[in-house]
Amino acid sequence: MKTYKDLSPSPRTIMTPGPVEVDPRVLRAMSFPILGQFDPEFTALMNETMEMLRTVFYTENHWAYPIDGTSRSGIEAVLTSLIEPGDTVLVPIYGRFGHLLVEISERCGAEVTTLEQEWGKVFDPAQIIQQIRKHPPTILALVHGETSTGCMQPLEEIGKACRELDVLLVVDAVATLGGTKVAVDEWQLDAVIGGTQKCLSIPSGMAPITYNQRVADKIAKRKKVERGLRTAEADTALTGRAIQSNYFDLSQLQDYWSPVRLNHHTEATSMLYALREGLRIVLEEGLEARFQRHKRHERALVAGLTQMGLSLFGDPHCKMPMVTCVLIPDKVDGESVRQMLLHQFGIEIASSFGPLQGKIWRIGTMGYSCNQKNVLHLLGALEATLLRHQVPIHPGLAVQAALDVYEQEQR
Amino acid sequence: MKTYKDLSPSPRTIMTPGPVEVDPRVLRAMSFPILGQFDPEFTALMNETMEMLRTVFYTENHWAYPIDGTSRSGIEAVLTSLIEPGDTVLVPIYGRFGHLLVEISERCGAEVTTLEQEWGKVFDPAQIIQQIRKHPPTILALVHGETSTGCMQPLEEIGKACRELDVLLVVDAVATLGGTKVAVDEWQLDAVIGGTQKCLSIPSGMAPITYNQRVADKIAKRKKVERGLRTAEADTALTGRAIQSNYFDLSQLQDYWSPVRLNHHTEATSMLYALREGLRIVLEEGLEARFQRHKRHERALVAGLTQMGLSLFGDPHCKMPMVTCVLIPDKVDGESVRQMLLHQFGIEIASSFGPLQGKIWRIGTMGYSCNQKNVLHLLGALEATLLRHQVPIHPGLAVQAALDVYEQEQR
Repeated sequence: MKTYKDLSPSPRTIMTPGPVEVDPRVLRAMSFPILGQFDPEFTALMNETMEMLRTVFYTENHWAYPIDGTSRSGIEAVLTSLIEPGDTVLVPIYGRFGHLLVEISERCGAEVTTLEQEWGKVFDPAQIIQQIRKHPPTILALVHGETSTGCMQPLEEIGKACRELDVLLVVDAVATLGGTKVAVDEWQLDAVIGGTQKCLSIPSGMAPITYNQRVADKIAKRKKVERGLRTAEADTALTGRAIQSNYFDLSQLQDYWSPVRLNHHTEATSMLYALREGLRIVLEEGLEARFQRHKRHERALVAGLTQMGLSLFGDPHCKMPMVTCVLIPDKVDGESVRQMLLHQFGIEIASSFGPLQGKIWRIGTMGYSCNQKNVLHLLGALEATLLRHQVPIHPGLAVQAALDVYEQEQR
Repeated sequence: MKTYKDLSPSPRTIMTPGPVEVDPRVLRAMSFPILGQFDPEFTALMNETMEMLRTVFYTENHWAYPIDGTSRSGIEAVLTSLIEPGDTVLVPIYGRFGHLLVEISERCGAEVTTLEQEWGKVFDPAQIIQQIRKHPPTILALVHGETSTGCMQPLEEIGKACRELDVLLVVDAVATLGGTKVAVDEWQLDAVIGGTQKCLSIPSGMAPITYNQRVADKIAKRKKVERGLRTAEADTALTGRAIQSNYFDLSQLQDYWSPVRLNHHTEATSMLYALREGLRIVLEEGLEARFQRHKRHERALVAGLTQMGLSLFGDPHCKMPMVTCVLIPDKVDGESVRQMLLHQFGIEIASSFGPLQGKIWRIGTMGYSCNQKNVLHLLGALEATLLRHQVPIHPGLAVQAALDVYEQEQR
């Protein structure tokens, strides 16, 4: 019989826009023994996780809990629970993940309209607001931070307009949650999906979501108690069309995440341990301090890259602090550079998608990966790799420029 | 600010039908650092996991990989990828999880018909075969092991009949995979879903599935490359109706789990480590040896329970080896017994659902939890707890009876 070796991953410096390195405290949390799903000790951990999520989302929403799946499972859970066939969804697209919102909404039976912005820019909020005034959709679905382009869409004015026009605003904050402010209540966002494997620095496999009473009310009309658990009185509330997914039915998930504890799935125990520990770390650092840290390392990274002679991609006014996109210099094989970084230096950076494939590298400074050691290590290794590829850059300047930033800020 | 304590779960002996205790090797695997999703070291681990799953499923199927979600995510992925609106699905129900198959199939737009068997029994295969001969459905969906009742449905004859009649047979083997034989190819099962947190003894959060070319062919007609990744040539194959879920679209997941590595979700890194390590442990023990171990501890447990004076629930001819259902004696508060076991002895057993709520206890002997220490510990604790509840049982006999079984078999 074929045998398989002991797990022994090589050491990696992960500077992609996710998944990123995980705090050893989170890794250790996953190695604790299992508790039963209805063990009071476990349900207490679930409740604490909900509390911490509210803080991280800057919300008073009651509903803040993870979906057991990767980030896009959270997006699909929200959209499939909200969208009834014939509902209209407007998606302003400025990168790959806008297309994903269209894709998911269409599969939920929505009539989708889109606005498109050139990749590397975001929308003037006025343009989106004008569109929803003209044709108010049931839902406006929008990406907060587009890791495919490194751009971040301002949401505050859009949230205000949606509330006035009674449009539900669903926001994909997968890449931004925990790295920059996602002010759910202040910005009047109705439903927001975060990611674990990005700025929260937890392994992929859970998708924290939050939503307000406007969303809960719409979902409540579609509530259907699961067959096999149903009693005679149940289902009297069902006035909307039943949600087309059982796994992503937020009305059922609510019963599981509330004192009723009505059985649905078996909560992913070890991932819940990881999420709880990751959120504890975020709160111990402090949200504002964490956002400042992401800005600081971005400054150092950008200083180093530009001093080296590289150009950044995208409109700097809407740049995400945790993703930096670099134009691949002319005639350089971007994949060869990435391979050399990985295999010689143990550093991973990312390529991009669609129109940007082969055009840019994407460097992430997210969560636990967002630290001085990583930024300096990357700049030195990238310089050496580009020299090895005969790229005419300015040697010796990048790491110095980053050190200047760090030393200035340490004063 | 509120602070949250260090994670510190109490020691538990988990004798439920899942989630169960996890081998420390699996827990340790989850504590290894993250690899990027397209790192060749990680994709090699993905491929090894596929190979091992094929062995555990007794199949030559190419497709054998996990869905990133809890067990029911695997069921929904298979059903939603297969079912087109108007397809007919027959579900023979003999417990709660049959109802779940109905629930999911209906949400996928299927026309569902059911057969119902009293809880505690299974179907005579001839009855199901007669039904599919009379009205061949597109899909027959069936539970292999019903943890809600502790019964296991024989599948071999049904598989043969489905193949003859060109019916697709989808089997929920969540509770049985890794604890008793699930002979996918020999029994002619077209798609099978396993669970991690039961006999594989891996934390909840992944759902291993396998399916054959018949299923792959049906899914291929519905293939749609994701927006934002799509090139001009794509989607020419789409002749069926697009799958109503993006997250559970097996045609897209196949591209992620093949050398194309077309980006879909970000594979749940730590859970994949866990699954790989758990499967390694299963293969090191040997499948047949593992099944024998489950039978051995079942014999000891049943001997102990019956000597104590308790009666088992369900038809013994179709009893699952890894779940033992006990009738709660008259006038005994089943929940009070469970609470005492948990809070005084640190042992968890389960209650049941629907018509069996308050009527039976369910004791699991699954995977890593299925061991002599646990069985003896449980029997002693249950005896003491029942005495404490003034239940007229025969004291002193249960542990002795189990020891007899173990000593006989050790000879």
